[in-house]
Amino acid sequence: MQNVTLEVEGMTCGHCVNSVEGALKNIGAKGQVELATKTVKVQFDENKLTLETIKETIEEQGYDVV
Amino acid sequence: MQNVTLEVEGMTCGHCVNSVEGALKNIGAKGQVELATKTVKVQFDENKLTLETIKETIEEQGYDVV
Repeated sequence: MQNVTLEVEGMTCGHCVNSVEGALKNIGAKGQVELATKTVKVQFDENKLTLETIKETIEEQGYDVV
Repeated sequence: MQNVTLEVEGMTCGHCVNSVEGALKNIGAKGQVELATKTVKVQFDENKLTLETIKETIEEQGYDVV
């Protein structure tokens, strides 16, 4: 398992939290959004997912990974 | 038809727009959220709905009508 913390712009409310965490869950990763720090902590299996896929998944929800 | 513009706190993103406009649509009103001005323009049939119901519907979505 790999843990990364990503800085993500545009997450403002509980719906955004659900969108990002839900999308990560759908691809088999575990995400934890913290609105105050504009971060997403992601835990994923590096044998199944790449960091690139994680980033794309978040961006597909309409947010910018910086 | 009656038109009112309500000031609403807490709407921050497109999901919030969808929540508020969707909830109003569900009760038969027409809402238009403007995030920049924190307002919701609502058009409704005063023979079928009251302003109190409109406000409650918005607040049930988690926002404060001020």
